[in-house]
This record gives sequence, C-alpha cells and structure tokens, in this order.
Amino acid sequence: MAKGKINVSVENIFPLIKKFLYSDHEIFLRELISNATDATLKLKHLSTIGEAKVDYGDPKIEVKIDKEGKKLHIIDQGVGMSKEEVEKYINEVAFSGAEEFLEKYKDTAKDSGIIGHFGLGFYSAFMVAEKVEIITKSYVDEESAVHWTCDGSPEFALTEADKKDRGTEIILHIAEDSTEFLEEHRIRELLVKYNKFMPVPIKFGTKEIDDPEFEPKTIKDKDGKETKEPHKKITVDNIINNPNPAWTKQPSDLKDEDYSSFYRELYPMQFEEPLFNIHLNVDYPFNLTGILYFPKLTTNIDIQKDRIQLYQNQVFVTDNVEGIVPEFLQMLRGVIDSPDIPLNVSRSYLQADGAVKKISSYITKKVADKLQSLFKNDREGFEKKWNDIKIVIEYGMLSEPKFYEKAFKFALFPTVDDSYFTFDELIEKVKPAQTDKDKNIVLLYATNADEQHSYIEEAKEKGYEVLLLDSPIVSHLIQKIEGENSELSAEKQPIKFARVDSDFIDNLIKKDEDKVSKLTEEEQTKLKEIVEGVVPKEYTVQLEALDSNANPFVITIPEFMRRMKEMSQTGGGGMMGMSNFPEMYNLVVNTNNDLMQKILRAKGKKEEYVNQALDLAKLSQNLLKGKDLTAFIKRSFDIMK
Amino acid sequence: MAKGKINVSVENIFPLIKKFLYSDHEIFLRELISNATDATLKLKHLSTIGEAKVDYGDPKIEVKIDKEGKKLHIIDQGVGMSKEEVEKYINEVAFSGAEEFLEKYKDTAKDSGIIGHFGLGFYSAFMVAEKVEIITKSYVDEESAVHWTCDGSPEFALTEADKKDRGTEIILHIAEDSTEFLEEHRIRELLVKYNKFMPVPIKFGTKEIDDPEFEPKTIKDKDGKETKEPHKKITVDNIINNPNPAWTKQPSDLKDEDYSSFYRELYPMQFEEPLFNIHLNVDYPFNLTGILYFPKLTTNIDIQKDRIQLYQNQVFVTDNVEGIVPEFLQMLRGVIDSPDIPLNVSRSYLQADGAVKKISSYITKKVADKLQSLFKNDREGFEKKWNDIKIVIEYGMLSEPKFYEKAFKFALFPTVDDSYFTFDELIEKVKPAQTDKDKNIVLLYATNADEQHSYIEEAKEKGYEVLLLDSPIVSHLIQKIEGENSELSAEKQPIKFARVDSDFIDNLIKKDEDKVSKLTEEEQTKLKEIVEGVVPKEYTVQLEALDSNANPFVITIPEFMRRMKEMSQTGGGGMMGMSNFPEMYNLVVNTNNDLMQKILRAKGKKEEYVNQALDLAKLSQNLLKGKDLTAFIKRSFDIMK
Repeated sequence: MAKGKINVSVENIFPLIKKFLYSDHEIFLRELISNATDATLKLKHLSTIGEAKVDYGDPKIEVKIDKEGKKLHIIDQGVGMSKEEVEKYINEVAFSGAEEFLEKYKDTAKDSGIIGHFGLGFYSAFMVAEKVEIITKSYVDEESAVHWTCDGSPEFALTEADKKDRGTEIILHIAEDSTEFLEEHRIRELLVKYNKFMPVPIKFGTKEIDDPEFEPKTIKDKDGKETKEPHKKITVDNIINNPNPAWTKQPSDLKDEDYSSFYRELYPMQFEEPLFNIHLNVDYPFNLTGILYFPKLTTNIDIQKDRIQLYQNQVFVTDNVEGIVPEFLQMLRGVIDSPDIPLNVSRSYLQADGAVKKISSYITKKVADKLQSLFKNDREGFEKKWNDIKIVIEYGMLSEPKFYEKAFKFALFPTVDDSYFTFDELIEKVKPAQTDKDKNIVLLYATNADEQHSYIEEAKEKGYEVLLLDSPIVSHLIQKIEGENSELSAEKQPIKFARVDSDFIDNLIKKDEDKVSKLTEEEQTKLKEIVEGVVPKEYTVQLEALDSNANPFVITIPEFMRRMKEMSQTGGGGMMGMSNFPEMYNLVVNTNNDLMQKILRAKGKKEEYVNQALDLAKLSQNLLKGKDLTAFIKRSFDIMK
Repeated sequence: MAKGKINVSVENIFPLIKKFLYSDHEIFLRELISNATDATLKLKHLSTIGEAKVDYGDPKIEVKIDKEGKKLHIIDQGVGMSKEEVEKYINEVAFSGAEEFLEKYKDTAKDSGIIGHFGLGFYSAFMVAEKVEIITKSYVDEESAVHWTCDGSPEFALTEADKKDRGTEIILHIAEDSTEFLEEHRIRELLVKYNKFMPVPIKFGTKEIDDPEFEPKTIKDKDGKETKEPHKKITVDNIINNPNPAWTKQPSDLKDEDYSSFYRELYPMQFEEPLFNIHLNVDYPFNLTGILYFPKLTTNIDIQKDRIQLYQNQVFVTDNVEGIVPEFLQMLRGVIDSPDIPLNVSRSYLQADGAVKKISSYITKKVADKLQSLFKNDREGFEKKWNDIKIVIEYGMLSEPKFYEKAFKFALFPTVDDSYFTFDELIEKVKPAQTDKDKNIVLLYATNADEQHSYIEEAKEKGYEVLLLDSPIVSHLIQKIEGENSELSAEKQPIKFARVDSDFIDNLIKKDEDKVSKLTEEEQTKLKEIVEGVVPKEYTVQLEALDSNANPFVITIPEFMRRMKEMSQTGGGGMMGMSNFPEMYNLVVNTNNDLMQKILRAKGKKEEYVNQALDLAKLSQNLLKGKDLTAFIKRSFDIMK
C-alpha cells in the first residue's frame, strides 16, 4: 500500500481563484476593505493591551480611484506588514493572518471585531486586476517598508519601499474587462452596499462644508445695508460609512429618535416612519444583534420581502434571509448581525441547523413579546396600528404554532364600526345575542364594508356585531380558529364564522322562531315557478318568510363553498381545483314583501318585475355588469322622465 | 529585488475547498456525474477513432444508496484510470483531465460533449463525505485496478484492487451533517434537477414492467370462464434521464408531437399545451441550442419568471437567465444550452459581455421572426393566440427598440367585437370616420368591455371602432405609439388614443358641427347652479347639448390624468407621485335630455332628481358603492311596490 499527500500546485489553483473564487466579482472590494479593517482593529487591540507602543489616533481607510492610471487604491493606517509577514501572509495562499491573530490573542481579542477568516480575500483582487501592488510598513519601527508586485502569474517581486507611515496600500491595476470598477458611482455603490456600517471610517473623496469654527461677521454692502459675510467653506474627508450603527449599541443608550434616524439611514428612500421597532441582543447560546422594524404594510405579501439585511461583524452579507428569519417576519425591515449563521450551505442544511433554528425561534419570540407588551401598555395605540400590522400577525398565526399560541391573546378582531376586540372579549360580547338554537356562537364578518354594505346593515339592525376581516388570508385563519375551537368541552360552545352575505340574516343565526308566510302554499309554489322560469340557472331559488320590510330579493353566497374557493386561490388549503369551480348563488325570495303579491297578480308584466328585482339584488352583490347594467340604467332613466 | 513564487499549501487550501467550493453542497452529485459522463464519452471517442480496442456497448452510470453503510456509490463504465492516472488526476488538485484530453484530441474531440473544466469537481465530494474511495480499472487491459482512499485530510492511501471490468466507482462515506444525501427522494430530486438530460443513461434503482416479449395466453378460470393469464413482470433498470433531449436534435428531425412531449418532460405538472415553440440552433459566432415555448400567460408578469432553464452541454446550470435572455422573454418557458455563457461573473459584467449581448439579440430576433411567420402564414391562428401572447409582445415593444420595429408590423389591435387589425389596417379602416376637425386620427379604446359597456355602446352607435386594450402596461404602449407617430410629415396625421369614457363621444372626436341646445342661456346657468349645488366637489359639471336620446348625466374621466396615473402605478413612466393623486371626474350634463326640463321646473324635488340621475351615472362607472348603493336599491324597490 502506498501512502501519499494530495498535492496542490499554484499554477493550477491560481487561475481558479481568479475566475471562480466568488460568484460575484464585485465582492473584491468588500474583501479588501475587510482586510484593511482587520489591520486597523489589530493595531487598536495591540495598543490597548500595550503591545504596540503607538498613538492609535483616529485611523481611516481610504479608497481612491486613479481613472487615468486605471488604478484603484485601498489605503489603511493599521498594523502594516514587515517583509517576513508579507512572505507569510501574502505569499502563502489561504493562510489566514486573522485566524492566527485571534488564536494568539484569544484571551483578549474575542470582541475585537476582527473579520478575516479564510485568508483568501486578498486574492479576490485578481478577479478584477491584471496586476496588484502592495506597499506596506509595519507599526514596528525597526521594520522597513516593502513593495510587493504580482501580475497574476504566481510570480511575485519583492523590494524595499520608502513608505514612512505605518499601514498598507493596495494598488489594483484594473483589468480591461473590469473597468466598471474605475467609475466613481460604481465604487460608491459598492461601498454603500457592503461597507456602510463597517467599524473603521472609510474615506472616499472629499467634500466642501461650512467651516464650523467660522463665525460670519455682520458687514455693510455697497449700498450701506447690513448683511452677513459669506460663510467660509472648508474641505473635509467624505466619510462614506457609519462606524457605530445603532444595532451595535445597548438599547438603554438609544432614544426613539435614534431608532428613527437609523431607519432613515437604512432606507433613505422610505418616507414613512416605521410603526415600532424590536432591538435584538443576545450572547448565548448564539451571538445575535439587530434591529427589526415594523413598516406599514400593504396587503401584497410578495412585494414586501428582501428588506432585512444580514451582516456578520458589520460587514453586509446578503438581503436574502430565507431560512434564517421565519417567513412571516420577512415582511419586516431592518438588520440582523450574527457571526453564527453558516453561509455557503444549502437551504435544507440551513433549515436543519440547530443554531439557525434557535435564532429563528428567538426572533419569533422577541417579536411576539414586543407585540404583547405594546398590546398591554398601549391598547389604544395598538388598535390604531392593527390594520398596518395584522398581515404579519395573521400570517404568523397560520404558519408558526408557537406564535399562534401567543398571538391569539392579543390578535384583534375589528368590527365594521371600528371597535376592536380580542377573541375572548368578542365571545363575551356576542355570546348572548349570537348563539343560535344549536348552541353555536356565530361570528358574522364582512370582507369589504363597501361591497357588503346592505348585508351588514341587515345584521346590525338585528343588534349583531359584524367583524371586518379583510386580509387576503382570512379564510385560512378563520378555518384554523374554528378548528382549534371545535373540540371544546360540552359546556363550551363551538365557534362558527359566517360572512354576512352567506345567507339571509335569520338563517345565519337561527333562533327558535316560527315564521309566518303571507302566501298560501299554493301561492308559494306558483311564485317559485315564476321566479325560476325567469332567473338564470346559477341561482337557486329559496323562498323565505322574512320581515315584510326586508328587500324582496336577496342574493347570498354559501359560506363553505366560497371559503374553500378562496383558500384554494390563496394557496395551501381548501380543496384541490376548487378555485376553478363556477360561482353558485342562492336567490332568497321574501314571500312577505308586497312585491310578491304584485308579481303573482300582474298580468303579462311578471317577467319584467322579476327581472328588475333580480337586477337590484345583483347590484347589491356587485353582479350587475356590462350589457345588463347599461340596459338597467337606460330603463331607470326612462322611468325618471 | 527578490523574486519568488506564491505558494499554496494543501493543508490551507483543502479545508477551503470543503467549505467554500460551491455555494450549494448539493452540487457534488452533479459534479461526480459530470465526471462519470466524461469518462464514458472519452471511451466512446477513443473507440470511435480506433484508439481504444474495446466494445463500447451500451454503458450506463449507476447511482446507488447504501443507507445502512451510510454510503453513496457512483459507478461508471468509462475509461477508468491506471495507477499513474490516479496520481496525476486525483492527487493533483485542480489538474483537469478533461482539459488535457480535449487538448490532446483537439482535432477530433471538439463535439464529443466532454464537460470537465476546472478539475475541481471531484473534490466537491468532500463537502458532504467524511471519507471518499475510488475503485477504478482502466480500459487498457494491461493496467490493473487500483483503490484510492482519503479521509479528507490531504493524506491518501493507494492499493491494488481486484475490480475486473473497466470504469470507476466512487464511494462517498456521507458525513453526519449531510445525511440528507442518503435519502432516496433527495437523490432522486437532485438527479432530476441537474442530470435529467445528460448524455449517458443514469440508473437509479430498478422497476418492474410488463415483459414486452411475453404474450399472455387465454386460459379458463375455475368457473370455466375464458380469461387472459396474468402479464409476466420483469425487473429492469430505472433510467432517470433522457440522454437525447429534443433540443440536441435537428429541427427537421422533430415533429409537433416531439415538441409537445418534450414540453411535458420539462414541465410534468403543466397541463396546458404551449401555444407554439421556437427552436434555437446556432454555431457561429457562438454556440447555442435550445427550444423556447410560448405558454398561455396570465397578466401577472412577476409570477411568470424563472421558467427558462440554462444548460451547458446538457448539464443543468440554473433557472435564472437574467442578463442572458431579454427581460420580456423571461416570461417564456423552455431550455437554452450554451457553453459560451460565462458563469460566476457579476450581472453587470454579463450585461456588458459581447458574446452574451449577441446571444440575447439572437434570441430576440428568432422570436420576432417566428411571430412574423406565424402572422404571415396563419393569420387566423395568430389572432386566436393573440390574447395569450400579447403581454410578451407588448412588453417587448416597450423595452427593446429593435423588437418594436419588427413587432409593430404584426402586433394586433383587437376591437371589442373581436376583429383584429394591425396598426396600418386600423388606421386605414378608421381614418374616414375617426379623423377629427384638427386632422388627428382618434383611436378609441376600452380597457374593460364590461365596466365601460355603456360608453362603448355610445361610440359604436356613431359607427366608430372601439379597441379592447386590456394589458396592464397598455398606457405605456399607447404613449409610445403616439410618440413615435407625433412627428409625421404634414400629409400624415397625428395619432391620438382616447379611452371611450374619457369624454362624451362627440367631444372625443370633434367634428365641425353646430350643436343646438334646447335650453336658453339663462336656463343653462340656472341648471348648472342646481347641479353644482347637489353633486360632490370631485365632479366638474360640464353642460353639453347632446342628442336628446343620450343619457341625461354621464361621468367621464379625462384621458391625460388617468393615463399618467396608470403609468405611474405600473412603474417606469408617467409622473412622479401621480399614483397618489385623487380621482377627478367630469359630470357631463346633457341639456337636451327631457329630464333637464323636469329638473328646472320641479318644485322641491330638484335635488332628488339630480341625485337619482347622478347615482345612475355613477353606476355606469362602477362608482356607486356602500351606503349610497344600499339607499339607491331600497329606493328603487320602493318605487316597484
């Protein structure tokens, strides 16, 4: 048996690193700035523990474009490298200086913020540059500066340099196919995307501002008028990042304005204030900080995603938090920063990963707790926000059983008259009036107060409460709530939801009442025949002895079929294929309305009466359209004249 | 000056390859099967050119799960490797055997279908396996079989093996965190996703089928009845892929059924037939094959994307073809196969890449040509398909100037009566009747035949054609068409689009006609006062002397504002912030309708008349809702009784 060691030759691996290292070439800038940041933070750490006898000062990282020279410079004022260090860290691919540093200083450097990991980042420069130079001077006084050059072949040249101040300058000679990275707007875009919150100030150009030290004197102009002299301008560094973003601070150090202004920093194009925020901050069993914001949401769920940004040690990673944040919370905005989330793994692995699972349920719990406390401490404010946050809460109740448990206590059920009940309050309120003869508690709801107006009015006249449940997923939610309440003990009463237009009102909440019809049975049979002879076949004619003041014809849409259809349309529930079922309607005919006598006795005009009454009933359900509507309007105008 | 060579040590790079090589671990299977395919195709090539004196036969690749042993096997019957080859290809990371092969046999092997590229694929096995074995026997008789083992440290062991038949078996000892890859359904899912159309048959398990050789005899059962004896079953290999997918064939070798059944293969859950297909096939200046299908589209653009699959040499790469296929064609379905599309580059690079630009415009041109020929050769069929394809064509006309030029000749403008005109035909047809006094040709359109029914009827009574333009992006398109036709020479006439309800009909196409009002000027002033006193302020009252048979009140929505609003809502056009503008309406009052006399002369009931007429006008525009509608219906029922 032969034993041996797998061999990697630099000639083979180098072309791969250039082409293949990252799926997106623009990453090189993030990597180089991460290195510069590490170099600066290392110096900070060494000066803190007294190992580097230097004045740490106020170091910056500078990014500079030399468009004519086709060069991009990244300059830091960090630890720098000696000749030996260049040979160790640069000439050995994938030897991570950061890991070595963290290992060496593990007792003190844990929270130093040092990012580096694989020791490969530097080589990403070759994805966009045909030649790379390093000019570097160590913080150790005795070490002289060195100049390293490599044209992308594995050959490098190393000479002395005359750089005087400590730190490292990387010079990229941008390749022909990457000249986009010589454009100011492109580099600015990348800096804002990846480095906006990195912990060392990043300078990109300069800008003019009013000199804060200068106090303009009052002078007289040539007409003798008093006026202020012009403000003196000074040129200052243009710092592109905020090294101390809100999420890295303690919640106790932040005021409401701080959260607001950080929201503005994250979403400069967003003009609406968020409704509230949740500060995440946990050390154990995983590390996670962040701030989530509840924005005002529209009802379109899909549009809302990709708003939460994921960072690792203040470096932007992605705005796709699928698998990390539960789906229903992906509608929120904000920032999560955690070094404990594995990247570059498959989604199924992510979903099975223990740490990620814990992160996901921690976030869910924090959101539920925040909502709970808003509900308890400011019920009125919570009610005002309800319409803007309900989609998240309702979607969460449907998809996360643990969230359902908590949220069921504070989820609100608004009525068409703008009262807001919790479920328990609602049951308490409606139980006396809305218990039917079979002991069901019937909860009436509308999905659109405008379109179902006449049905709502009928219910309100009976003294019933009508909920306004207008979320797109409401069929799923009420189905779930009915289910959770279907196996109550004998004393408790089952809950049934019914939309106000799913039957005529006395049938929705059946009481033990005798109904007397003004028509004889013979007349009823006759009437049914007449009506059925006129109305189209999608209407099932249903004679009922209602109040004589109630409308003569009412169109209803049975609850079960409609709900299954809606669930099937909004996905994940209902019955397969239900969404293509034809609409079916009941036509409730009020035998006690005087119009029925008129229809029975009319000579020849029966059909006209039935049609006009059907048209009016259809108008109530928004079913009268096109040709029929035009004819109805014409007819009605003629009647007026 | 010192010179030197950058060094890569295997200890540093190996952990990186394991963690970092691909962003998705599941890729390992695609890579190993690509290697097995290459090994098989190499043998095929060598036997074709007479260099390998073997019977190529009917080789397969087998994938086998050993769940108890926690192993996954990938077995091929290809060239195999000698000890020397293992040392060269396996023990040297990133040494690509495929590239070497293609270089050596470059004259003959160009079209052999060999995939390998970087020589890294094999190592992806270590992303999911804690130990990997290779048992391999070269097709060269004299070479003996070898057995290579490596536990993921860079150390390997190499011994002789007693494998008799040529080919390579890879055995992955699946790691604890990757046991998902021991599940049959997961492996099947990956094989279907990545290898469904790879060129060598892939066996995954066996299945029972009716023996095709067996002819069941007629036998008598115990009651004496004649019956067929049961069919004999045989066990055969379960081949998971189709090695010769339709797009690799010549269009002349394919019938309509072949395209249909390939569509079914690509989208097994899709029950609707595609409308037509476009076979792509080009060698120069780039290599591209593929088949695009026009599915029936809904109007929701976003839902439609991610349906085109990108392959390279029959290996699935991605279903995100952004940057490669023009955006408007991403609504199509199908397959594109090209080795010339650079992967792992930034989107901006992709968009600037010359080859990709050529591919994108080639595809656009092919689609335009296909549509052109459908239009020419089967006008009736093209008209029938129009509603299902228009969204692609209209979107393409808006976004690609070259496509606009071509499509303008075959884009159809359907009328509410189901006639279909090209633009030129339409102008020819309507020019006599629909030229206004200022020489504009006014094209009337509706966006919803139901909702705008009464306005359409008015226009049709005048003998005008009314187009039905109901795409969500139609405002943008007509804006563009008007623009393209606004600078015509003096002879030609400018084109104006106007929705039928944007004014009353005589104002939409103004002729030099005197209108006589039945009312005196005094009466008109009085009438205007009365109406303005009753109707809400969002209505601008506009008295017009219309035909006395025309409706007394008509609500119109001015074209310009509405169009800008719609453009702003559907994005990319119109005016900033317009989408939040309040709705503004004109209330056209027909002074010649008899109702006006009644309103002027009525005592006390003026307001009632105006309100009822306004309600009816609102009904026409779907503006009567909620409380007002309920009251209207109640009132109308009362009138009936």
